[in-house]
Amino acid sequence: MPDIHSPLSAPDGFAVTTGPLPSSRKIHVESPRLAGVRVALREIDLTEGSGEPPVRVYDTSGPYTDPAHATDIRAGLPALRRAWIEARGDVETYDGRAVRPEDNGLKDGEVSRVPVFDRSGRRPLRAIGGRAVTQLAYARAGIVTPEMEYVAIRENLGRATLREQGRTVRDLGGESFGAAIPEHVTGEFVRDEIARGRAILPANINHPEAEPMIIGRNFLVKINANIGNSAVTSSVAEEVDKLVWAIRWGADTVMDLSTGRNIHTIREWIIRNSPVPIGTVPIYQALEKVGGQAEELTWEIFRDTLIEQAEQGVDYFTIHAGVRLPYIPLTARRVTGIVSRGGSILAKWCLAHHKENFLYTHFEEICEIMKAYDVAFSLGDGLRPGSIADANDAAQFAELETLGELTKTAWKHDVQVMIEGPGHVPMHLIKENMDKQLRECGEAPFYTLGPLTTDIAPGYDHITSGIGAAMIGWFGTAMLCYVTPKEHLGLPDRDDVKVGVVTYKIAAHAADLAKGHPAARERDDALSRARFEFRWKDQFNLSLDPETAERFHDQTLPAEGAKLAHFCSMCGPKFCSMKITQEVRDYAARQEAEAGMAAMSETFKEKGGQIYLSDRPLPADHH
Amino acid sequence: MPDIHSPLSAPDGFAVTTGPLPSSRKIHVESPRLAGVRVALREIDLTEGSGEPPVRVYDTSGPYTDPAHATDIRAGLPALRRAWIEARGDVETYDGRAVRPEDNGLKDGEVSRVPVFDRSGRRPLRAIGGRAVTQLAYARAGIVTPEMEYVAIRENLGRATLREQGRTVRDLGGESFGAAIPEHVTGEFVRDEIARGRAILPANINHPEAEPMIIGRNFLVKINANIGNSAVTSSVAEEVDKLVWAIRWGADTVMDLSTGRNIHTIREWIIRNSPVPIGTVPIYQALEKVGGQAEELTWEIFRDTLIEQAEQGVDYFTIHAGVRLPYIPLTARRVTGIVSRGGSILAKWCLAHHKENFLYTHFEEICEIMKAYDVAFSLGDGLRPGSIADANDAAQFAELETLGELTKTAWKHDVQVMIEGPGHVPMHLIKENMDKQLRECGEAPFYTLGPLTTDIAPGYDHITSGIGAAMIGWFGTAMLCYVTPKEHLGLPDRDDVKVGVVTYKIAAHAADLAKGHPAARERDDALSRARFEFRWKDQFNLSLDPETAERFHDQTLPAEGAKLAHFCSMCGPKFCSMKITQEVRDYAARQEAEAGMAAMSETFKEKGGQIYLSDRPLPADHH
Repeated sequence: MPDIHSPLSAPDGFAVTTGPLPSSRKIHVESPRLAGVRVALREIDLTEGSGEPPVRVYDTSGPYTDPAHATDIRAGLPALRRAWIEARGDVETYDGRAVRPEDNGLKDGEVSRVPVFDRSGRRPLRAIGGRAVTQLAYARAGIVTPEMEYVAIRENLGRATLREQGRTVRDLGGESFGAAIPEHVTGEFVRDEIARGRAILPANINHPEAEPMIIGRNFLVKINANIGNSAVTSSVAEEVDKLVWAIRWGADTVMDLSTGRNIHTIREWIIRNSPVPIGTVPIYQALEKVGGQAEELTWEIFRDTLIEQAEQGVDYFTIHAGVRLPYIPLTARRVTGIVSRGGSILAKWCLAHHKENFLYTHFEEICEIMKAYDVAFSLGDGLRPGSIADANDAAQFAELETLGELTKTAWKHDVQVMIEGPGHVPMHLIKENMDKQLRECGEAPFYTLGPLTTDIAPGYDHITSGIGAAMIGWFGTAMLCYVTPKEHLGLPDRDDVKVGVVTYKIAAHAADLAKGHPAARERDDALSRARFEFRWKDQFNLSLDPETAERFHDQTLPAEGAKLAHFCSMCGPKFCSMKITQEVRDYAARQEAEAGMAAMSETFKEKGGQIYLSDRPLPADHH
Repeated sequence: MPDIHSPLSAPDGFAVTTGPLPSSRKIHVESPRLAGVRVALREIDLTEGSGEPPVRVYDTSGPYTDPAHATDIRAGLPALRRAWIEARGDVETYDGRAVRPEDNGLKDGEVSRVPVFDRSGRRPLRAIGGRAVTQLAYARAGIVTPEMEYVAIRENLGRATLREQGRTVRDLGGESFGAAIPEHVTGEFVRDEIARGRAILPANINHPEAEPMIIGRNFLVKINANIGNSAVTSSVAEEVDKLVWAIRWGADTVMDLSTGRNIHTIREWIIRNSPVPIGTVPIYQALEKVGGQAEELTWEIFRDTLIEQAEQGVDYFTIHAGVRLPYIPLTARRVTGIVSRGGSILAKWCLAHHKENFLYTHFEEICEIMKAYDVAFSLGDGLRPGSIADANDAAQFAELETLGELTKTAWKHDVQVMIEGPGHVPMHLIKENMDKQLRECGEAPFYTLGPLTTDIAPGYDHITSGIGAAMIGWFGTAMLCYVTPKEHLGLPDRDDVKVGVVTYKIAAHAADLAKGHPAARERDDALSRARFEFRWKDQFNLSLDPETAERFHDQTLPAEGAKLAHFCSMCGPKFCSMKITQEVRDYAARQEAEAGMAAMSETFKEKGGQIYLSDRPLPADHH
């Protein structure tokens, strides 16, 4: 697929993808309640004369799609949240931990050629005197933070239109399985959801560049994309561009799963340039520091890694504290054993020492660190099933119960929590996962990988898992971790990342629609009206991937005029089912207006005219 | 994607794709009960020394993947069923209808350059003296036909393995929503399902080349692919190859939606070379015959077209007899009106004449024709929703109720029936479609197009609809009509057809798994074992698309040795979560064998060894 490397935004070596999507403008909605809260949204302009207003959509892409923003990844993004964080008066700057060679997988004295992000003048923040500087702590204290206000405006999308139509969320008639999607999202509603632990707002105080977003089942379903450094990295821009590319297509958060050399340096570049929360799996880096020997891992090395990453600004950590020693033998008879990398590292450690997982035994100390920076937990499912045969087994559910126990511990420390879920699960066992997660984990947000609904389609696992993701999203999962076509086979490239993100946007959106979310429905209706009225450009521009839609159209009808024509390639110019519908409307209108129906027949015949001469085949939708 | 045009099978201009899939052999299972019933299956051979038996899978590809078959499309396929049909003694040959210029969209005296299939010596068959020569009539008479016996063996896949494991279908624990998947499929079970109208076996007596297959919710979920001629056709082989290509990847039936010129000729080439049932929408050809003027359509022209196509061997007809005049105004307030082409042709006719749909008024006469050839009904949903906004509305459900009424009429005439369904439906409204269809149509098989679960992703509608297809397949839909990535945008090419078919095989298979079908589970487990044991070639060969899986793998690790290596590109050679599982198994085994657990820790440590040195990024499944 052709990329849209728009006008380069920085000198050679530091360029990333910028520029708006077709017919789209970045807009900022100001909070009427809190000065300085300006929420970025995307507005898609439709064809002039269509009588259709612009359609506002949720925008994860950050300043990169804003022509008014001069992108320079060497400077990083503006520190949007800095003033809010400082205004709370509960944090202090300090010297922070010095970067060590092993943070980048280097030997003592070894120098990397990878350029270092210039942090001069920047010192990390942490909580003063053991306080919890988390959104959860503020929420419990009754404070609606600017972050919460930002999220309220961002999530309110579509409600204005609905109100103009005189309709309510209830009128949309979705089925939300006990979720409580509000008629109007207020800052207070956001605060309450966070206070109850039912949503998280991942916002490390050392990542002020991030635009606030929320993960919880009473909000729009979110998606995560994974990125990671490759063996040979030609430029830091390439790494940053993976992030920029993923959020351009809709990733709400990005996990940096880099391993090997230069990961500290690359993480710094990523965070300083990320408008979305960044998640990591700290055990990966800790393992690097002990030369890849799982049994050499210690609490001290792990602890130091948490602080290193918290100071950089990582917003959530995957912590596999539920992989308890007694559960490990439960996996012995599985078809695919332990497939989580984090899970197997910890299983190996537990077996080598015959000791309980040190993440479990030190869990309260982990909480103490995380509350000082507002890093959220993503409690990892290290024992998730890696095949249909292993779904919903004793090992998986034992771990889930422990994650429930740990959720309560984290909440005790005012630390935000979400729970990771599987994996490979056949359709009929998906709902049990959701129901059990809600029950065991006190409605903490669920964050699942797919699940894949069959094992037999390597090369198409974005689809096998997109099916499960849509379903579990509908049932209540708050964030869906994407799977690319390369899953199980190799490393995703740029096209794979895009296909993975778009597939997961489809799953999340289908879930929002089924739950009855007003923003979701607005876009479907706008696109369907455009389709019906042959506004081809509007149909492309309202779609999740305007370039692919336009390219596919042009393969059959390349002429520019075809995009203005009131027909499509399927039925040709002279016959068209949509054209006939206009006649049906005229008929129904006249039927109402006139009494005599028999007379109508003649009138219609007089209008007559040839309607069909195509010799093209038809796609499925038209038979 | 690269195609696999294997060694050409015929002289230039008549070549189609032939040759087996990797590591696959065509096998034939003979019925112990009925001589001459030899059921074609595919057997996938796994790596020598793996200790794994070959895996048998359902095979739609026909003789084209059998090296023992000399493909020559000018001769057509062998008439597998001819002897069975003749042995029943209820049919006669006759001269048949003469081909007219308008059948091919030609003017009087105009000659087409498209070569004509040589039918010399072939005369059509029809029932003697008004008899019903349908599988339904035989089933009701208590006869297990060879076709039913063939289907029983074909559908029994996976049950032998299950029995060897000492397990039953019930042990698989699926949820089938009231479907009754038998422990063992017998010819008698097939007969009974057909007799009850709960399954159809589409098998026109003039299409003896087709391998019997069944569509019903107590059997494997089937998929249909649509093909159709393009504006410029260079060779008939190109048209036949579309069919061969679709069945190679798993299409169970193929609909020929050709329009325009030469459609009679091309249909003949397709049917003579098709091992799967062929469906059509006869109103398309009838409309051609009246110059594309819907209002000029007459019962006589339509009737003649039915006979023309029945004599050629079309196995099922989409008949839009449910588009009744009073329902048409119900579509006036829709966002996307009438999107079915057949539906809009008939709506236009009804409005022009202000008369009831002639397919509805002549329905019993249609039944009389269809029972004389055993053409099955696919009762078309001409008023299906074309957008999320229009799902499950009054027009759609009014038509469905009429389809239920027509089902009973068809059954009265011993004609087999399935019912077409939507379309565009959000997830939460899908099940209502299935439940209502079962109720209104007396459990006649449901055959749905997707449904698409959102409108906002043109270019990805194989995915938006694959989600809905998997779900409705699970709920009980018997056949899923595929949607390609080009849906709504343009004409599918060869790659689009393959992606559409594979996506729908995923949906059908995920549904079979969730219903608890034994054949489905066997393949998942075999593939997952191969994955776990790093039998890369086996993983590729067991997948739905071995070539794509291998190509994706090779993009990251191209060396041939990598396919033998006990590691993958995700974690590299020195650390591997699957390797660790083997250690877990050893541990669990020793834990059982030995009493002292503390001692184990030291043993493990001594084994030690470096386990991790990768600098590669990780895909989602490994964090």
